Amino acid sequence: VNLLLVEASEVEPNRAVRVADRRARHLLRVLRVTPGQYVRVGIVDGPLGQGIVERTSDDAVELRCTFDEAMPSRPPVDLLLALPRPKVLQRLWAQLAALGVGHIALTNAEKVERDYFDTHVVTPETYRPLLIEGLQQARDTRVPTVSLHKRFRVVVEDELDAQFGRGIRLVAHPNAPHGVAHQVSATHATRALLAVGPEGGWNAFERELLRSRGFLEAGMGPRTLRSDTAAVALLALVHDALRFP
Amino acid sequence: VNLLLVEASEVEPNRAVRVADRRARHLLRVLRVTPGQYVRVGIVDGPLGQGIVERTSDDAVELRCTFDEAMPSRPPVDLLLALPRPKVLQRLWAQLAALGVGHIALTNAEKVERDYFDTHVVTPETYRPLLIEGLQQARDTRVPTVSLHKRFRVVVEDELDAQFGRGIRLVAHPNAPHGVAHQVSATHATRALLAVGPEGGWNAFERELLRSRGFLEAGMGPRTLRSDTAAVALLALVHDALRFP
Repeated sequence: VNLLLVEASEVEPNRAVRVADRRARHLLRVLRVTPGQYVRVGIVDGPLGQGIVERTSDDAVELRCTFDEAMPSRPPVDLLLALPRPKVLQRLWAQLAALGVGHIALTNAEKVERDYFDTHVVTPETYRPLLIEGLQQARDTRVPTVSLHKRFRVVVEDELDAQFGRGIRLVAHPNAPHGVAHQVSATHATRALLAVGPEGGWNAFERELLRSRGFLEAGMGPRTLRSDTAAVALLALVHDALRFP
Repeated sequence: VNLLLVEASEVEPNRAVRVADRRARHLLRVLRVTPGQYVRVGIVDGPLGQGIVERTSDDAVELRCTFDEAMPSRPPVDLLLALPRPKVLQRLWAQLAALGVGHIALTNAEKVERDYFDTHVVTPETYRPLLIEGLQQARDTRVPTVSLHKRFRVVVEDELDAQFGRGIRLVAHPNAPHGVAHQVSATHATRALLAVGPEGGWNAFERELLRSRGFLEAGMGPRTLRSDTAAVALLALVHDALRFP
Protein backbone atom coordinates (compact mmCIF):
# COMPACT_ATOMS: atom_id res chain seq x y z
CA VAL A 1 0.00 0.00 0.00
CA ASN A 2 1.51 3.28 -1.16
CA LEU A 3 -1.25 5.60 0.06
CA LEU A 4 -3.54 5.60 3.09
CA LEU A 5 -7.06 6.26 1.80
CA VAL A 6 -9.66 7.53 4.24
CA GLU A 7 -13.31 8.45 3.82
CA ALA A 8 -14.21 12.16 4.07
CA SER A 9 -16.29 11.28 7.15
CA GLU A 10 -13.16 10.02 8.90
CA VAL A 11 -11.46 13.42 8.77
CA GLU A 12 -12.19 15.57 11.84
CA PRO A 13 -12.66 19.35 11.40
CA ASN A 14 -9.12 19.82 12.78
CA ARG A 15 -7.77 17.40 10.12
CA ALA A 16 -7.13 14.65 12.61
CA VAL A 17 -7.66 11.09 11.37
CA ARG A 18 -7.76 7.93 13.45
CA VAL A 19 -7.68 4.49 11.82
CA ALA A 20 -8.11 1.28 13.77
CA ASP A 21 -8.84 -1.38 11.16
CA ARG A 22 -6.69 -3.30 8.69
CA ARG A 23 -5.23 -0.02 7.46
CA ALA A 24 -3.87 0.54 10.98
CA ARG A 25 -2.48 -2.99 11.07
CA HIS A 26 -0.74 -2.39 7.74
CA LEU A 27 0.75 0.91 8.97
CA LEU A 28 1.92 -0.68 12.20
CA ARG A 29 3.05 -4.13 11.11
CA VAL A 30 4.27 -3.63 7.53
CA LEU A 31 5.28 0.03 7.30
CA ARG A 32 6.16 0.14 11.04
CA VAL A 33 5.23 3.80 11.38
CA THR A 34 6.19 5.74 14.52
CA PRO A 35 5.15 9.20 15.79
CA GLY A 36 6.66 12.06 13.78
CA GLN A 37 6.71 10.07 10.57
CA TYR A 38 4.94 11.28 7.42
CA VAL A 39 2.51 9.10 5.50
CA ARG A 40 0.91 9.75 2.10
CA VAL A 41 -2.84 10.09 2.64
CA GLY A 42 -5.83 10.73 0.40
CA ILE A 43 -9.57 11.20 0.80
CA VAL A 44 -11.70 8.80 -1.22
CA ASP A 45 -12.92 10.81 -4.24
CA GLY A 46 -11.12 13.82 -2.78
CA PRO A 47 -7.64 15.33 -2.69
CA LEU A 48 -4.26 13.74 -1.95
CA GLY A 49 -2.23 14.98 0.98
CA GLN A 50 0.06 13.90 3.77
CA GLY A 51 -0.35 13.00 7.40
CA ILE A 52 2.08 13.12 10.28
CA VAL A 53 1.73 10.25 12.75
CA GLU A 54 0.82 11.73 16.14
CA ARG A 55 0.13 8.65 18.22
CA THR A 56 0.18 4.89 17.81
CA SER A 57 -1.19 2.08 19.96
CA ASP A 58 -1.37 -1.68 19.48
CA ASP A 59 -4.18 -1.44 16.97
CA ALA A 60 -4.72 2.24 16.06
CA VAL A 61 -2.86 5.11 14.42
CA GLU A 62 -3.69 8.80 14.82
CA LEU A 63 -2.53 11.31 12.23
CA ARG A 64 -2.81 15.04 11.59
CA CYS A 65 -3.27 15.69 7.86
CA THR A 66 -2.96 18.41 5.23
CA PHE A 67 -4.60 18.04 1.84
CA ASP A 68 -4.05 19.53 -1.61
CA GLU A 69 -6.53 22.09 -2.96
CA ALA A 70 -7.47 20.08 -6.04
CA MET A 71 -8.30 16.42 -6.36
CA PRO A 72 -6.76 14.12 -8.99
CA SER A 73 -8.63 14.12 -12.29
CA ARG A 74 -10.60 11.07 -13.35
CA PRO A 75 -8.63 8.61 -15.50
CA PRO A 76 -9.24 9.26 -19.22
CA VAL A 77 -10.31 5.68 -19.96
CA ASP A 78 -13.70 4.01 -19.49
CA LEU A 79 -14.41 0.33 -19.87
CA LEU A 80 -17.29 -1.63 -21.38
CA LEU A 81 -16.49 -5.09 -20.06
CA ALA A 82 -18.37 -8.30 -20.81
CA LEU A 83 -18.99 -9.65 -17.31
CA PRO A 84 -16.13 -12.10 -16.57
CA ARG A 85 -16.41 -15.26 -14.50
CA PRO A 86 -16.75 -14.33 -10.81
CA LYS A 87 -13.34 -15.74 -9.91
CA VAL A 88 -11.69 -13.72 -12.67
CA LEU A 89 -13.58 -10.52 -11.85
CA GLN A 90 -12.66 -10.86 -8.17
CA ARG A 91 -8.99 -10.74 -9.17
CA LEU A 92 -9.57 -7.93 -11.64
CA TRP A 93 -11.20 -5.18 -9.52
CA ALA A 94 -8.04 -3.98 -7.80
CA GLN A 95 -6.04 -4.15 -11.02
CA LEU A 96 -8.60 -2.04 -12.90
CA ALA A 97 -8.52 0.64 -10.20
CA ALA A 98 -4.71 0.54 -10.10
CA LEU A 99 -4.37 0.96 -13.88
CA GLY A 100 -6.93 3.78 -13.81
CA VAL A 101 -10.50 3.58 -15.11
CA GLY A 102 -13.16 6.29 -14.92
CA HIS A 103 -16.26 4.15 -15.35
CA ILE A 104 -16.67 0.37 -15.56
CA ALA A 105 -19.84 -0.75 -17.37
CA LEU A 106 -20.28 -4.51 -16.92
CA THR A 107 -22.43 -5.95 -19.66
CA ASN A 108 -24.06 -9.15 -20.70
CA ALA A 109 -23.08 -10.80 -24.02
CA GLU A 110 -23.93 -14.08 -25.69
CA LYS A 111 -20.93 -15.81 -24.15
CA VAL A 112 -21.55 -14.48 -20.63
CA GLU A 113 -23.38 -16.84 -18.28
CA ARG A 114 -26.52 -15.14 -16.99
CA ASP A 115 -26.00 -16.25 -13.40
CA TYR A 116 -22.73 -14.29 -13.16
CA PHE A 117 -25.01 -11.30 -12.50
CA ASP A 118 -26.32 -12.89 -9.30
CA THR A 119 -22.98 -13.34 -7.56
CA HIS A 120 -21.60 -11.23 -4.72
CA VAL A 121 -18.63 -10.14 -6.89
CA VAL A 122 -20.83 -7.54 -8.59
CA THR A 123 -22.09 -6.01 -5.32
CA PRO A 124 -20.55 -2.76 -4.01
CA GLU A 125 -19.88 -4.50 -0.67
CA THR A 126 -17.44 -6.77 -2.51
CA TYR A 127 -15.95 -4.54 -5.16
CA ARG A 128 -15.59 -1.23 -3.38
CA PRO A 129 -12.88 -2.43 -0.92
CA LEU A 130 -11.06 -4.07 -3.83
CA LEU A 131 -11.21 -0.89 -5.92
CA ILE A 132 -9.88 1.08 -2.95
CA GLU A 133 -7.08 -1.47 -2.53
CA GLY A 134 -6.08 -0.80 -6.16
CA LEU A 135 -6.20 2.97 -5.65
CA GLN A 136 -3.98 2.69 -2.57
CA GLN A 137 -1.51 0.71 -4.68
CA ALA A 138 -1.52 3.31 -7.49
CA ARG A 139 -1.77 6.42 -5.28
CA ASP A 140 -5.06 7.64 -6.68
CA THR A 141 -8.24 8.72 -4.89
CA ARG A 142 -10.86 8.51 -7.64
CA VAL A 143 -12.97 5.37 -7.25
CA PRO A 144 -14.15 4.03 -10.63
CA THR A 145 -17.92 4.17 -10.93
CA VAL A 146 -19.58 0.86 -11.83
CA SER A 147 -22.80 0.01 -13.65
CA LEU A 148 -24.41 -3.34 -14.51
CA HIS A 149 -26.19 -3.97 -17.82
CA LYS A 150 -28.12 -7.17 -18.39
CA ARG A 151 -28.97 -6.25 -21.97
CA PHE A 152 -26.04 -5.63 -24.30
CA ARG A 153 -28.19 -4.11 -27.01
CA VAL A 154 -29.76 -1.57 -24.64
CA VAL A 155 -26.48 -0.37 -23.14
CA VAL A 156 -24.76 -0.06 -26.52
CA GLU A 157 -27.66 1.47 -28.47
CA ASP A 158 -29.31 3.69 -25.86
CA GLU A 159 -26.94 4.39 -22.98
CA LEU A 160 -23.38 4.74 -24.28
CA ASP A 161 -23.85 8.12 -25.94
CA ALA A 162 -25.25 9.71 -22.80
CA GLN A 163 -22.63 8.18 -20.50
CA PHE A 164 -19.57 8.40 -22.77
CA GLY A 165 -20.13 11.21 -25.22
CA ARG A 166 -16.59 12.19 -26.09
CA GLY A 167 -13.51 10.22 -26.93
CA ILE A 168 -12.45 7.38 -29.16
CA ARG A 169 -14.18 3.98 -28.92
CA LEU A 170 -12.04 0.91 -29.32
CA VAL A 171 -12.65 -2.83 -29.42
CA ALA A 172 -9.90 -5.42 -29.68
CA HIS A 173 -9.95 -7.80 -32.61
CA PRO A 174 -7.25 -10.39 -33.39
CA ASN A 175 -6.79 -9.55 -37.07
CA ALA A 176 -7.37 -5.80 -37.18
CA PRO A 177 -4.65 -4.13 -39.29
CA HIS A 178 -3.94 -1.29 -36.83
CA GLY A 179 -3.01 -1.31 -33.18
CA VAL A 180 -4.41 0.73 -30.29
CA ALA A 181 -1.67 3.38 -30.51
CA HIS A 182 -2.32 4.01 -34.20
CA GLN A 183 -6.06 4.39 -33.69
CA VAL A 184 -5.63 6.78 -30.76
CA SER A 185 -3.05 8.99 -32.50
CA ALA A 186 -4.95 9.00 -35.81
CA THR A 187 -8.02 10.45 -34.06
CA HIS A 188 -6.14 12.81 -31.67
CA ALA A 189 -8.24 11.34 -28.90
CA THR A 190 -7.76 12.43 -25.29
CA ARG A 191 -10.32 9.98 -23.81
CA ALA A 192 -11.13 6.41 -24.73
CA LEU A 193 -13.95 3.95 -24.18
CA LEU A 194 -12.62 0.42 -24.43
CA ALA A 195 -14.81 -2.64 -25.08
CA VAL A 196 -13.38 -5.92 -23.75
CA GLY A 197 -15.28 -9.03 -24.79
CA PRO A 198 -16.00 -12.32 -23.04
CA GLU A 199 -13.55 -15.23 -23.04
CA GLY A 200 -15.03 -16.62 -26.27
CA GLY A 201 -15.17 -13.22 -27.97
CA TRP A 202 -18.09 -11.04 -29.07
CA ASN A 203 -20.46 -12.79 -31.48
CA ALA A 204 -21.11 -11.41 -34.98
CA PHE A 205 -24.18 -9.42 -33.89
CA GLU A 206 -22.36 -7.83 -30.94
CA ARG A 207 -19.33 -6.99 -33.05
CA GLU A 208 -21.50 -5.38 -35.71
CA LEU A 209 -23.48 -3.39 -33.13
CA LEU A 210 -20.25 -2.06 -31.60
CA ARG A 211 -18.99 -1.11 -35.05
CA SER A 212 -22.26 0.67 -35.85
CA ARG A 213 -21.87 2.73 -32.67
CA GLY A 214 -18.41 3.98 -33.61
CA PHE A 215 -16.09 1.39 -32.08
CA LEU A 216 -12.86 1.10 -34.07
CA GLU A 217 -11.15 -2.30 -34.14
CA ALA A 218 -7.61 -2.52 -32.81
CA GLY A 219 -5.35 -5.50 -33.40
CA MET A 220 -4.02 -7.50 -30.48
CA GLY A 221 -2.35 -10.37 -32.30
CA PRO A 222 -3.48 -13.97 -32.61
CA ARG A 223 -3.08 -15.06 -28.97
CA THR A 224 -6.36 -15.60 -27.11
CA LEU A 225 -6.11 -14.14 -23.60
CA ARG A 226 -8.13 -14.76 -20.45
CA SER A 227 -10.41 -11.77 -19.89
CA ASP A 228 -8.47 -10.38 -16.93
CA THR A 229 -5.19 -10.56 -18.85
CA ALA A 230 -6.86 -9.01 -21.90
CA ALA A 231 -8.38 -6.17 -19.85
CA VAL A 232 -5.06 -5.33 -18.16
CA ALA A 233 -3.20 -5.52 -21.49
CA LEU A 234 -5.69 -3.30 -23.33
CA LEU A 235 -5.89 -0.73 -20.52
CA ALA A 236 -2.10 -0.51 -20.54
CA LEU A 237 -2.09 0.04 -24.32
CA VAL A 238 -4.76 2.73 -24.21
CA HIS A 239 -3.17 4.61 -21.31
CA ASP A 240 0.19 4.47 -23.07
CA ALA A 241 -1.29 5.72 -26.35
CA LEU A 242 -3.02 8.63 -24.59
CA ARG A 243 0.15 9.45 -22.62
CA PHE A 244 2.53 9.33 -25.62
CA PRO A 245 0.40 10.37 -28.60
CA VAL B 1 -8.69 -24.06 -23.05
CA ASN B 2 -8.39 -23.32 -26.76
CA LEU B 3 -5.78 -25.97 -27.59
CA LEU B 4 -5.12 -29.51 -26.34
CA LEU B 5 -1.39 -29.72 -25.60
CA VAL B 6 0.21 -33.15 -25.43
CA GLU B 7 3.78 -34.25 -24.78
CA ALA B 8 5.70 -35.74 -27.74
CA SER B 9 5.86 -39.02 -25.77
CA GLU B 10 2.07 -39.21 -25.75
CA VAL B 11 1.86 -39.38 -29.55
CA GLU B 12 1.92 -42.96 -30.88
CA PRO B 13 3.79 -43.69 -34.15
CA ASN B 14 0.39 -43.86 -35.90
CA ARG B 15 -0.45 -40.37 -34.55
CA ALA B 16 -2.98 -41.70 -32.06
CA VAL B 17 -3.21 -39.82 -28.75
CA ARG B 18 -5.08 -40.93 -25.65
CA VAL B 19 -5.65 -38.55 -22.74
CA ALA B 20 -7.20 -39.63 -19.45
CA ASP B 21 -6.40 -36.83 -17.01
CA ARG B 22 -7.84 -33.35 -16.42
CA ARG B 23 -7.42 -32.60 -20.12
CA ALA B 24 -9.85 -35.45 -20.83
CA ARG B 25 -12.28 -34.17 -18.23
CA HIS B 26 -12.13 -30.71 -19.83
CA LEU B 27 -12.76 -32.16 -23.30
CA LEU B 28 -15.65 -34.26 -22.02
CA ARG B 29 -17.34 -31.98 -19.47
CA VAL B 30 -16.67 -28.48 -20.80
CA LEU B 31 -16.18 -28.88 -24.55
CA ARG B 32 -18.44 -31.97 -24.63
CA VAL B 33 -16.57 -33.57 -27.52
CA THR B 34 -18.03 -36.56 -29.36
CA PRO B 35 -16.52 -38.96 -31.92
CA GLY B 36 -15.98 -37.35 -35.31
CA GLN B 37 -15.35 -33.92 -33.87
CA TYR B 38 -12.13 -31.99 -34.56
CA VAL B 39 -10.02 -30.51 -31.76
CA ARG B 40 -7.04 -28.17 -32.02
CA VAL B 41 -3.98 -30.02 -30.72
CA GLY B 42 -0.32 -29.19 -30.28
CA ILE B 43 2.82 -30.94 -29.12
CA VAL B 44 4.66 -29.24 -26.26
CA ASP B 45 7.62 -27.43 -27.87
CA GLY B 46 6.52 -28.91 -31.19
CA PRO B 47 4.07 -28.21 -34.00
CA LEU B 48 0.38 -27.31 -33.89
CA GLY B 49 -2.15 -29.58 -35.56
CA GLN B 50 -5.60 -31.03 -35.26
CA GLY B 51 -7.08 -34.24 -33.92
CA ILE B 52 -10.28 -36.04 -34.73
CA VAL B 53 -11.99 -37.65 -31.76
CA GLU B 54 -12.12 -41.40 -32.38
CA ARG B 55 -13.48 -42.74 -29.09
CA THR B 56 -14.63 -41.36 -25.75
CA SER B 57 -15.33 -43.05 -22.45
CA ASP B 58 -16.25 -41.71 -19.02
CA ASP B 59 -12.76 -40.49 -18.32
CA ALA B 60 -10.68 -40.76 -21.50
CA VAL B 61 -10.58 -39.40 -25.03
CA GLU B 62 -8.80 -41.01 -27.99
CA LEU B 63 -7.84 -38.90 -30.99
CA ARG B 64 -6.05 -39.36 -34.32
CA CYS B 65 -3.90 -36.33 -35.08
CA THR B 66 -2.13 -34.56 -37.93
CA PHE B 67 0.56 -31.96 -37.25
CA ASP B 68 2.03 -29.02 -39.17
CA GLU B 69 5.54 -29.32 -40.59
CA ALA B 70 6.94 -26.34 -38.71
CA MET B 71 6.54 -25.38 -35.08
CA PRO B 72 5.54 -21.89 -33.89
CA SER B 73 8.50 -19.55 -33.45
CA ARG B 74 9.57 -18.47 -29.98
CA PRO B 75 7.97 -15.21 -28.78
CA PRO B 76 10.26 -12.21 -29.48
CA VAL B 77 10.23 -10.99 -25.88
CA ASP B 78 12.32 -12.14 -22.91
CA LEU B 79 11.81 -11.10 -19.32
CA LEU B 80 14.20 -10.22 -16.50
CA LEU B 81 11.79 -10.25 -13.57
CA ALA B 82 12.59 -9.40 -9.96
CA LEU B 83 11.19 -12.43 -8.15
CA PRO B 84 7.65 -11.49 -7.05
CA ARG B 85 5.92 -12.65 -3.87
CA PRO B 86 5.00 -16.36 -4.21
CA LYS B 87 1.26 -15.63 -4.28
CA VAL B 88 1.71 -13.08 -7.05
CA LEU B 89 4.06 -15.30 -9.08
CA GLN B 90 1.64 -18.21 -8.78
CA ARG B 91 -1.01 -16.08 -10.52
CA LEU B 92 1.48 -14.78 -13.07
CA TRP B 93 2.92 -17.95 -14.65
CA ALA B 94 -0.05 -18.73 -16.89
CA GLN B 95 -0.45 -15.09 -17.89
CA LEU B 96 3.21 -14.81 -18.92
CA ALA B 97 2.93 -17.91 -21.10
CA ALA B 98 -0.34 -16.66 -22.59
CA LEU B 99 1.08 -13.25 -23.49
CA GLY B 100 4.18 -14.90 -24.95
CA VAL B 101 7.65 -14.91 -23.42
CA GLY B 102 10.75 -16.67 -24.74
CA HIS B 103 12.80 -16.80 -21.56
CA ILE B 104 11.94 -15.79 -17.99
CA ALA B 105 14.97 -14.94 -15.84
CA LEU B 106 13.88 -14.54 -12.21
CA THR B 107 16.34 -12.43 -10.29
CA ASN B 108 17.04 -11.23 -6.81
CA ALA B 109 17.05 -7.48 -6.05
CA GLU B 110 17.33 -5.41 -2.89
CA LYS B 111 13.58 -5.35 -2.43
CA VAL B 112 13.08 -9.08 -3.04
CA GLU B 113 12.84 -11.24 0.09
CA ARG B 114 15.51 -13.91 -0.02
CA ASP B 115 13.21 -16.69 1.11
CA TYR B 116 11.03 -16.29 -1.98
CA PHE B 117 13.70 -18.44 -3.68
CA ASP B 118 12.94 -21.36 -1.39
CA THR B 119 9.23 -21.66 -2.20
CA HIS B 120 7.61 -24.30 -4.39
CA VAL B 121 6.38 -21.61 -6.82
CA VAL B 122 9.83 -21.51 -8.44
CA THR B 123 10.05 -25.28 -8.96
CA PRO B 124 9.33 -26.75 -12.42
CA GLU B 125 6.78 -29.10 -10.80
CA THR B 126 4.71 -26.03 -9.94
CA TYR B 127 5.32 -23.69 -12.83
CA ARG B 128 5.40 -26.03 -15.80
CA PRO B 129 1.70 -27.01 -15.60
CA LEU B 130 0.81 -23.33 -15.16
CA LEU B 131 2.89 -22.32 -18.18
CA ILE B 132 1.20 -25.05 -20.21
CA GLU B 133 -2.21 -23.81 -19.04
CA GLY B 134 -1.30 -20.36 -20.41
CA LEU B 135 -0.12 -21.84 -23.73
CA GLN B 136 -3.39 -23.78 -24.08
CA GLN B 137 -5.25 -20.51 -23.54
CA ALA B 138 -3.17 -18.65 -26.15
CA ARG B 139 -2.83 -21.55 -28.63
CA ASP B 140 0.94 -21.72 -28.52
CA THR B 141 3.24 -24.70 -27.99
CA ARG B 142 6.52 -23.06 -26.98
CA VAL B 143 7.07 -23.32 -23.24
CA PRO B 144 9.01 -20.34 -21.86
CA THR B 145 12.37 -21.39 -20.44
CA VAL B 146 13.01 -20.29 -16.87
CA SER B 147 16.18 -19.52 -14.93
CA LEU B 148 16.75 -18.43 -11.32
CA HIS B 149 19.41 -15.89 -10.33
CA LYS B 150 20.18 -15.22 -6.68
CA ARG B 151 22.71 -12.52 -7.52
CA PHE B 152 21.41 -9.56 -9.51
CA ARG B 153 24.88 -8.24 -10.28
CA VAL B 154 26.08 -11.56 -11.69
CA VAL B 155 23.12 -12.10 -13.98
CA VAL B 156 23.17 -8.53 -15.31
CA GLU B 157 26.95 -8.17 -15.69
CA ASP B 158 28.00 -11.64 -16.74
CA GLU B 159 25.06 -13.60 -18.08
CA LEU B 160 22.72 -11.31 -19.99
CA ASP B 161 24.95 -10.83 -23.02
CA ALA B 162 25.38 -14.56 -23.57
CA GLN B 163 21.70 -15.37 -23.06
CA PHE B 164 20.13 -12.32 -24.74
CA GLY B 165 22.58 -11.02 -27.29
CA ARG B 166 20.32 -9.28 -29.76
CA GLY B 167 17.39 -6.94 -29.33
CA ILE B 168 16.46 -3.84 -27.42
CA ARG B 169 16.65 -3.78 -23.61
CA LEU B 170 13.95 -1.89 -21.76
CA VAL B 171 13.22 -1.06 -18.15
CA ALA B 172 10.13 0.79 -16.98
CA HIS B 173 10.58 4.05 -15.10
CA PRO B 174 7.75 6.35 -13.97
CA ASN B 175 9.18 9.61 -15.27
CA ALA B 176 11.00 8.54 -18.43
CA PRO B 177 10.16 10.94 -21.27
CA HIS B 178 9.51 8.25 -23.89
CA GLY B 179 7.18 5.26 -23.92
CA VAL B 180 7.87 1.66 -24.88
CA ALA B 181 6.55 2.11 -28.43
CA HIS B 182 8.86 5.06 -29.11
CA GLN B 183 11.93 3.22 -27.84
CA VAL B 184 11.16 0.11 -29.89
CA SER B 185 10.47 1.98 -33.13
CA ALA B 186 13.47 4.33 -32.65
CA THR B 187 15.80 1.32 -32.53
CA HIS B 188 14.03 -0.79 -35.19
CA ALA B 189 14.16 -3.65 -32.73
CA THR B 190 12.64 -7.03 -33.55
CA ARG B 191 13.32 -8.62 -30.15
CA ALA B 192 13.16 -7.15 -26.67
CA LEU B 193 14.46 -7.97 -23.21
CA LEU B 194 12.24 -6.39 -20.59
CA ALA B 195 13.30 -5.77 -16.98
CA VAL B 196 10.43 -5.65 -14.47
CA GLY B 197 11.39 -4.55 -10.98
CA PRO B 198 10.15 -5.54 -7.53
CA GLU B 199 7.07 -3.95 -5.91
CA GLY B 200 9.19 -1.18 -4.37
CA GLY B 201 11.19 -0.59 -7.55
CA TRP B 202 14.85 -1.14 -8.42
CA ASN B 203 17.26 0.68 -6.10
CA ALA B 204 19.74 3.28 -7.41
CA PHE B 205 22.54 0.73 -7.84
CA GLU B 206 20.33 -1.73 -9.71
CA ARG B 207 18.93 1.02 -11.95
CA GLU B 208 22.43 2.24 -12.77
CA LEU B 209 23.70 -1.27 -13.50
CA LEU B 210 20.80 -1.89 -15.87
CA ARG B 211 21.49 1.43 -17.60
CA SER B 212 25.19 0.58 -17.93
CA ARG B 213 24.24 -2.70 -19.64
CA GLY B 214 22.16 -0.97 -22.29
CA PHE B 215 18.68 -0.91 -20.78
CA LEU B 216 16.68 2.08 -22.06
CA GLU B 217 14.11 3.59 -19.72
CA ALA B 218 10.50 3.66 -20.87
CA GLY B 219 7.83 5.74 -19.17
CA MET B 220 4.81 4.05 -17.64
CA GLY B 221 3.18 7.02 -15.92
CA PRO B 222 3.03 7.84 -12.22
CA ARG B 223 0.80 4.96 -11.05
CA THR B 224 2.60 2.29 -9.03
CA LEU B 225 1.43 -1.18 -10.09
CA ARG B 226 1.61 -4.56 -8.36
CA SER B 227 4.32 -6.60 -10.05
CA ASP B 228 1.92 -8.96 -11.82
CA THR B 229 -0.10 -6.07 -13.22
CA ALA B 230 3.11 -4.28 -14.24
CA ALA B 231 4.50 -7.39 -15.96
CA VAL B 232 1.30 -7.99 -17.93
CA ALA B 233 1.05 -4.29 -18.87
CA LEU B 234 4.67 -4.06 -20.03
CA LEU B 235 4.55 -7.32 -21.97
CA ALA B 236 1.44 -6.06 -23.77
CA LEU B 237 3.19 -2.79 -24.63
CA VAL B 238 6.32 -4.49 -25.94
CA HIS B 239 4.42 -7.05 -28.01
CA ASP B 240 2.28 -4.28 -29.46
CA ALA B 241 5.31 -2.13 -30.30
CA LEU B 242 7.04 -5.06 -32.03
CA ARG B 243 3.82 -5.96 -33.90
CA PHE B 244 3.03 -2.40 -35.08
CA PRO B 245 6.42 -0.71 -35.41
